[in-house]
Amino acid sequence: MERIILGIDPGFSFTGYGVLKVSQGKTALLDCGYLRLPPQKHLSERVGIFHQFFTKKIEQYKPTGIALETSFLGKNAQTFLKLGYLRGILYLLANNHQMSIQEFAPREVKSMLTGFGGASKEQVARMVFMLFPQLQQLKESERNDLTDAVAITLCGLWYNNVVVLGSTRAS
Amino acid sequence: MERIILGIDPGFSFTGYGVLKVSQGKTALLDCGYLRLPPQKHLSERVGIFHQFFTKKIEQYKPTGIALETSFLGKNAQTFLKLGYLRGILYLLANNHQMSIQEFAPREVKSMLTGFGGASKEQVARMVFMLFPQLQQLKESERNDLTDAVAITLCGLWYNNVVVLGSTRAS
Repeated sequence: MERIILGIDPGFSFTGYGVLKVSQGKTALLDCGYLRLPPQKHLSERVGIFHQFFTKKIEQYKPTGIALETSFLGKNAQTFLKLGYLRGILYLLANNHQMSIQEFAPREVKSMLTGFGGASKEQVARMVFMLFPQLQQLKESERNDLTDAVAITLCGLWYNNVVVLGSTRAS
Repeated sequence: MERIILGIDPGFSFTGYGVLKVSQGKTALLDCGYLRLPPQKHLSERVGIFHQFFTKKIEQYKPTGIALETSFLGKNAQTFLKLGYLRGILYLLANNHQMSIQEFAPREVKSMLTGFGGASKEQVARMVFMLFPQLQQLKESERNDLTDAVAITLCGLWYNNVVVLGSTRAS
């Protein structure tokens, strides 16, 4: 059974994403990258760009599900609310393209990747690089921001799934 | 110059809306009502219903702008974040249908309607009923929830506009 997961770590200044496919026990990283929304544009335009960007990715890769990290309130409530705008767009896309949508708490992501919910960002990144060594060829400034998105994508792929780390690593 | 404003007071359990048109100094209430999202449906489905509902309203009335009340963090941060999902859909619709989108703080709404930022909900409702007496024919349970949405719509109409209360009242 083939499954394709689009994992997204949304934010107005930086949105990382990954696209992973599992087929016959093999996992392949189809795409990963990021989107920066131009801060000088009106909020509605930025929301529109975000919607268009992921509509195109969905049309291109036809994912069966979306994976997201659960957000928690930070220092700024209005920033938190606006993060909801982008998440709402992803829920809309999940509905309109008949995809599942799954959220993972940061501890779950760490636990699924490293076996330990209190793991550091570096430990998670190390695991992601081990599974997908090609990511190490990216610029250092980019790759660190992308490991989070790829880690969330992996959670989406592994959740409720028979794929074990061993067979994933072999691909 | 004709202007049509869609004012929305979004929420998962109850979303009130109003549609007001100003043309040649006369203001008409084209529509007002509410949407209740079925709580048993998946979040992505509810977001989809919300999007579809307002897409239809926009196609029907072709508003030139959307008006919203600014949200503030309440007791539950996750409820607040999810409110952002619905607001994000409205920002997307504003972008995709070339409408302006304007937010008003609760004090601004009260101040524009009654001249006093600390006015009670009842004072605002009284003003709305005076402008649109036909609203008083609605069921009491409904009309109280709709006055907020109509008040926000009025703010969207009056903001940056030459229409004064007198000429509005005359329609």
